[in-house]
Amino acid sequence: MTDSVGVVATQRAVLTQRGPLVLASGAALAHVEVAYETYGELSPARDNAVFVCHALTGDAHAAGWHEGARRPGWWDNLIGPGKALDTERFFVVSANLLGGCSGTTGPQSVDPATGRPYGPDFPLLDMADFVTAHRGLLDHLGIDRLHAAVGGSLGGMQVLEWALQEPDRIDRAVLVAASSRLTPENIAFSSVARAAILEDPDFHDGRYADHGASPSHGLKIARMMAHITYVSGTSLEAKFGHRRATSGTDKRLGADFEVEDYLQHQGESFLRRFDALSYLHLTRPMDYFDPFGSHPDVVPSTRFRLLSFDSDWRFPTAHSLRIRDQLAARGVAVDHTEIASPWGHDSFLLEPPGYHDLVRGFL
Amino acid sequence: MTDSVGVVATQRAVLTQRGPLVLASGAALAHVEVAYETYGELSPARDNAVFVCHALTGDAHAAGWHEGARRPGWWDNLIGPGKALDTERFFVVSANLLGGCSGTTGPQSVDPATGRPYGPDFPLLDMADFVTAHRGLLDHLGIDRLHAAVGGSLGGMQVLEWALQEPDRIDRAVLVAASSRLTPENIAFSSVARAAILEDPDFHDGRYADHGASPSHGLKIARMMAHITYVSGTSLEAKFGHRRATSGTDKRLGADFEVEDYLQHQGESFLRRFDALSYLHLTRPMDYFDPFGSHPDVVPSTRFRLLSFDSDWRFPTAHSLRIRDQLAARGVAVDHTEIASPWGHDSFLLEPPGYHDLVRGFL
Repeated sequence: MTDSVGVVATQRAVLTQRGPLVLASGAALAHVEVAYETYGELSPARDNAVFVCHALTGDAHAAGWHEGARRPGWWDNLIGPGKALDTERFFVVSANLLGGCSGTTGPQSVDPATGRPYGPDFPLLDMADFVTAHRGLLDHLGIDRLHAAVGGSLGGMQVLEWALQEPDRIDRAVLVAASSRLTPENIAFSSVARAAILEDPDFHDGRYADHGASPSHGLKIARMMAHITYVSGTSLEAKFGHRRATSGTDKRLGADFEVEDYLQHQGESFLRRFDALSYLHLTRPMDYFDPFGSHPDVVPSTRFRLLSFDSDWRFPTAHSLRIRDQLAARGVAVDHTEIASPWGHDSFLLEPPGYHDLVRGFL
Repeated sequence: MTDSVGVVATQRAVLTQRGPLVLASGAALAHVEVAYETYGELSPARDNAVFVCHALTGDAHAAGWHEGARRPGWWDNLIGPGKALDTERFFVVSANLLGGCSGTTGPQSVDPATGRPYGPDFPLLDMADFVTAHRGLLDHLGIDRLHAAVGGSLGGMQVLEWALQEPDRIDRAVLVAASSRLTPENIAFSSVARAAILEDPDFHDGRYADHGASPSHGLKIARMMAHITYVSGTSLEAKFGHRRATSGTDKRLGADFEVEDYLQHQGESFLRRFDALSYLHLTRPMDYFDPFGSHPDVVPSTRFRLLSFDSDWRFPTAHSLRIRDQLAARGVAVDHTEIASPWGHDSFLLEPPGYHDLVRGFL
C-alpha cells in the first residue's frame, strides 16, 4: 500500500467549548462534535492544509483504510502519496457534515437540554452552517489559512459558500460537479426523495427512533431514485443492457432485470449506513442555496478551478458555467473545464482521463 | 362546442362470450370486459375506423365530455370535428387497457373462479395481451380493417405490437414518443416506482383490498417520480423557477418551492383515479417489450409515421429512430419527424407547433 495513506482512524473535536454553535437561522446547538480524519503532516509553517468537503452521503473517511475494512475511504483514488491530493505535500483534512450521521452532531445526537436525541427538533440547517462547523474544526486544529479546499457535488457547494463567507482564508478552491443554484428539476428529485421519507407511515413525525421504527421503505426508495440521477444512461446501458434473470414468458413484477438488482442493492446497503433525518437535513440546504445572493458584494481572494462532466445530467456543465460567470463578473480568478466521462454525476468519485491531473496541476 | 364531439359515455363490451381470453403466457381470463368510447360514425363500408391506444395512465375517455365533467377526454385536442382525428371523417375508437382500472377487466375485477377480486393473482400481461383485447373489441364492433391506429408512449408501443401481430389489418400507424426497447434507465425509473408500491407495508402482498388498506404512500411517490420524467427541465424552469412560499430564513423540510406543491398535487390526485396493482401490471410489459424480437419475420403492410419531441428525455428521439431503422430494414414504409417542443415526453398530449398537422396529413 505504498500509494495509500494506510490505516487511519476517525477522530472527534468538540467545537462548543467556548459557547454554543450559532446557526444561520439564529438557532444554537449547545454541544457540537465533529468527526474528522487527517492524512499527511501539517507543515511547520501550517500552510499546507487542504480541506476536503464531502458530498451528500459521504463521511469523514475520505482516504486510507479503517482497521479491518474491506474498502478504503470514498476519495482514496484522489488522496494519498503521489496522488492528486499528495499527502507527501499536503495535510488533508476531511470532516463529516453537521447534521450528518457518521460521527458529527446530527438529528440522532443527544440534545443536552433534554437528554434525548433531537429527532425532529434538530434545527434546519443552511449551507452556511456546514461551513461554520468546518471553520470551527480548522480553528480547533490551529490552521489559519487553507492551501486549498476541494469538494464535489454538495462538497463543491460548501467550498463555494466558504470562499464567500471567508474571502481571505482559502488560497485555491476546486469545485467539481457543483452548483450555485438548483433547478426546479433538481429540487423535484430531492423533494420526491424527501416525500418518500416524510410521508412513510414509519416516519412518525421524525420520532421513529422512539417508536422503535424506521422509515426504511421511504429511505430506500429515496436512495434508489437518487442513484439513477447520479449515473448516466450510457453507463447503465454499458453495464446492464437488457439482461434479466428470467427468460421467455417467465416474467415477474419484482426485480428481474440486472439494473433492478443493482438498484435494490444500492437501496438496501444505504439503509445500513444512513439515517433518514440526516438525509432530510443534508439535502434541503441545497435547494435553498444561493451563495451569490446571500453574499452580494464579496470578492474572495481565492483562485477557483471548476470541473464538470459531459454526461452529468444531475448537475450538468451549465451549473459550473453559471458559477464561473458569477465569479468572473466579480473579478475573481476562475477557470472551468468540462471533462469527457461516461459515468454521469458520480464521475467526481471516479477517474475519467484528465480529471485528477486537472486537480493536481491546480494545487 | 362545435369543435367537440360533445357529451359521450363509456360503453362496455364482453369479449369472452365464445370462450376465455388466452394470454401470451398461456394463462386465460374467463371473463373480460372492455370499456370503450367511440366518436364519429362508422361508414357503411366500415372502412373509416381509427383506433386510439392510450398511454400508461389514460383511459377509454379520450375525447368529448362526460355528463357534468369539468374537463374533456385526455386527447380532446386531437379528436373531434375538424381536428387531426376528424370525427366528421373517422369513426374513432378508444378503449381502456386490459389490466387497467377504468372499466376494463383488471386486478381489482372479480375472478369468476373465486368470486373475489384477482388482486395479486391477476396474471402477468404482455404487450401482446393489450392488443389481444383491442382485437377482440374490434371484432365485437364488426370492424375488419383499421384506417389507422394511433398512440403515444405506451399507446404507440401497442400500435407497433398490433401492426406486427396483424400485419394486414392496419393501413396506417402513428407512433408518438414510443419505443421498441426500453433502456436500462427507463427500466430503472419504472422499477423504483414499482418498488415504492411493492415494498409499501400497506401493499400486503397485493391483498391490500382485503385488509381495507392501500399502498397509497408508494403509489403517490411512484407517480411523483414518474411525473418528473414526463416533463422537461426547461418547462419546469419556465413554470416554477426558484419560487417558494417562505422567504429569508423561514424554511421547511416539507414542500415549500412551487415545484414541490405541483408534484404533491400530481401525486395526490393520482391516488383518486388509479389502482396500485394496475400500475404494476401496466408498467411491467413495457420493460419486457421486444416486438422485433418476438415477430422476427413479419412485414406489415401498414405505413408508419413516427413522431418524437426534442425535449423528451424519457423516450427520446433515439427510440423512434431505432423503430424507423428496424421497419425500414424490413421494407416497411416509414417516416419520422422530430418535433420541437419544450414540454418533454408529455408533449404527445399537448399541441407543439406542427405536431397535429403531421398526424392530420398522414391520415
